[in-house]
Amino acid sequence: RSERVAHFEQDVWSIFTPLALECQAVNLGQGFMNFPPPDFVIEAGREALLRNDCNQYSHPMGRPRLRNALAKSYGPLFERTLDPNTEIVVTAGANEGIFSIFAGYLDQGSEVILMEPFFDQYISNITMNGGVPVYCPIRPKGDTSKDMSASEWKVDIQELESKITPRSKIIVLNTPHNPIGKIFSREELEEIGALATKYNLLIISDEVYDRLHFDPKKHERIATLKGLWERTITVGSGGKTFGTTGWRVGWLIGPKALIEPALAAHTRVVFCVNSPLQEAIAIGFEQAEGHGFFGSQVSAYEHKRDKLLSVFKELGLPCTIPEGSYFILVNMEKVQVPQDYVFPELLNSRAKDFKTCYWLTKEIGVCAIPPTEFYSKPNRELAEKFARFAFCKTNETLEAAAERLMKLK
Amino acid sequence: RSERVAHFEQDVWSIFTPLALECQAVNLGQGFMNFPPPDFVIEAGREALLRNDCNQYSHPMGRPRLRNALAKSYGPLFERTLDPNTEIVVTAGANEGIFSIFAGYLDQGSEVILMEPFFDQYISNITMNGGVPVYCPIRPKGDTSKDMSASEWKVDIQELESKITPRSKIIVLNTPHNPIGKIFSREELEEIGALATKYNLLIISDEVYDRLHFDPKKHERIATLKGLWERTITVGSGGKTFGTTGWRVGWLIGPKALIEPALAAHTRVVFCVNSPLQEAIAIGFEQAEGHGFFGSQVSAYEHKRDKLLSVFKELGLPCTIPEGSYFILVNMEKVQVPQDYVFPELLNSRAKDFKTCYWLTKEIGVCAIPPTEFYSKPNRELAEKFARFAFCKTNETLEAAAERLMKLK
Ligand SMILES: CSCCC(=O)C(=O)O
Ligand SMILES: CSCCC(=O)C(=O)O
Repeated sequence: RSERVAHFEQDVWSIFTPLALECQAVNLGQGFMNFPPPDFVIEAGREALLRNDCNQYSHPMGRPRLRNALAKSYGPLFERTLDPNTEIVVTAGANEGIFSIFAGYLDQGSEVILMEPFFDQYISNITMNGGVPVYCPIRPKGDTSKDMSASEWKVDIQELESKITPRSKIIVLNTPHNPIGKIFSREELEEIGALATKYNLLIISDEVYDRLHFDPKKHERIATLKGLWERTITVGSGGKTFGTTGWRVGWLIGPKALIEPALAAHTRVVFCVNSPLQEAIAIGFEQAEGHGFFGSQVSAYEHKRDKLLSVFKELGLPCTIPEGSYFILVNMEKVQVPQDYVFPELLNSRAKDFKTCYWLTKEIGVCAIPPTEFYSKPNRELAEKFARFAFCKTNETLEAAAERLMKLK
Repeated sequence: RSERVAHFEQDVWSIFTPLALECQAVNLGQGFMNFPPPDFVIEAGREALLRNDCNQYSHPMGRPRLRNALAKSYGPLFERTLDPNTEIVVTAGANEGIFSIFAGYLDQGSEVILMEPFFDQYISNITMNGGVPVYCPIRPKGDTSKDMSASEWKVDIQELESKITPRSKIIVLNTPHNPIGKIFSREELEEIGALATKYNLLIISDEVYDRLHFDPKKHERIATLKGLWERTITVGSGGKTFGTTGWRVGWLIGPKALIEPALAAHTRVVFCVNSPLQEAIAIGFEQAEGHGFFGSQVSAYEHKRDKLLSVFKELGLPCTIPEGSYFILVNMEKVQVPQDYVFPELLNSRAKDFKTCYWLTKEIGVCAIPPTEFYSKPNRELAEKFARFAFCKTNETLEAAAERLMKLK
């Protein structure tokens, strides 16, 4: 076992997803849909399987049709003409895309600034490539014992600047944010961008939830700010965009010179991405507008969010109200796990929220994810009071969860 | 750009596949099929897309149905009961599987013994993870100016032993071999296995072409030899098995303790493999026997091999006659590229066979792959006289290639 993987604990997803299945819990844990992707995307996939060129290797950059569709769909959003031949790389999910950026940029000891909490896989993706994560908190400025908007979670820009050293190479931004549900405002992006410029950092902007933003908040892209296209790689996800988390189709968008090191790594790590589902995502983008898909998806999610929020309101559990993504952070301090409850061995080394979520899954029959997994070990205290609930589920599932959660009353 | 990727040249696949397309060459280069996968596999994929659980994340180890199908199909071949819950990991193609083994095992300076020639991606997969490739030649013992069997390419076992140092951690075996087409005999595997045991090396046995072996040769598995299951991870490929190179479904098989470090890496690199095509490959294995698929596939490939061999016989170009895989190494010394032929810039730093293959693609209209890409830089001399032709193509394509190749007469 290499040093690289020696310290890995079992990841939170391979604990809670099987646990939920085993307990027949209503699963609001891992962020995947339990409803089908849109018909036009599924049909596109079924049709692609009948064309043999869609069953063989794609170009490592991705299928031309998908790169063209991405350039066309994202061009207006990036406020520029995107070159599908040099500015877009299709990756085996956003995860592999991010891994490959780190592989293409980090040397032993290179530092990467993360805002904490962060998507848990960032850490291993950095350390496996010799990098060192450096943490800057996103702090709740409001009172976490009351409902608050996700916008009240804030990064202190002086504090962020204080984390930068001569070894800093990359800063990772995630907006809409998992697990907070915060969408960074234009002003916040400008401040972060100014620091990146001042210290010559590469920005990775993880925008996998870019199509999921709730009125009145709009998704803002750091790459559209003056001078920042030149130092930003934006990460996107077919799984989040079309409800196909198991298709493993993601992408990187940025200037040719920035994309190239990531492409060099990506080509060696996976060689290329599965072809038929790339084709289906391409057709998804081509047809989305005609189906009014992105708009109706947002309305559906807004409804689901409000439905789940009302459950916690009824239970008197304070929430961070998400502006985007499909997660709600819930303050669980009022939930009482019986003192004498016996947890399995595996959980002894884990934080309090881990135990709360385990008990909730097993005894209440609703699975949620412990947010300490999105924090570095020394900084977990605040997180221990929360649990993260996903609302990318059918209305029936959300109702079933509501019913079970009422046992907490 | 990290040191890790700084020295990468453009990979041979992203040069020759687009070049073949651009020139409308008959493409016998990259090893992908230009005929469809079997109907029952395609139908399984189309059907899976209609089941929503097949559109969402799989377990990082792979879908239970595929792990069960693999255990059932491979158990008899490995002469043991395989545990689908601990001894099999599904990977995003065999490539990512091999990358993840290296990520899970290599530390800075760990040495990996490769038999040369080798599949080109091994090198970057090793060096990206801090490892150092160490080369031991597979030498043609016969006369390469005549036809010879792939079995006449041999590793000298004393020479192999001389490459082992205290830093050696892994030895990579590839059988059936790409690009030679050699299937290692039981005796050869015993010798290699004895060395691995003597020096306590992990064996990676890349057997992606395991279902493609030609009478009278049978595929032998090093993991079935006495004491070697315990130190071997065997790598397999859905793409090679069912003619779906663009589906990116591969697997690792080995004892739990050996699999775990690779799984730990794999889970962080890609998280999981695309779900619908895993399901289709599972169903492929479930139904293959009923369709007599593996047997009829071998017959079809045997026919294709013989068809292409007869072309080179007619041209008087000596071949290595493959025992397995779908490649033929052809001695091109008699082929005359015009002295004054002008190559593009890009090719100046590349070896002679690279130029021959470029010219062949562009001027004769048949694409082949230069084998120096399967050699380390200092050891390319022998390889410069060869070109590698793939016969995983329709009979019509092989006939079209034959017609064009007659211009070499
Ligand atoms: C790596 S699976 C995690 C899925 C996800 O994005 C989430 O639930 O946060
Ligand atoms: C990485 S694509 C190469 C395909 C293949 O296995 C080959 O042609 O050797």
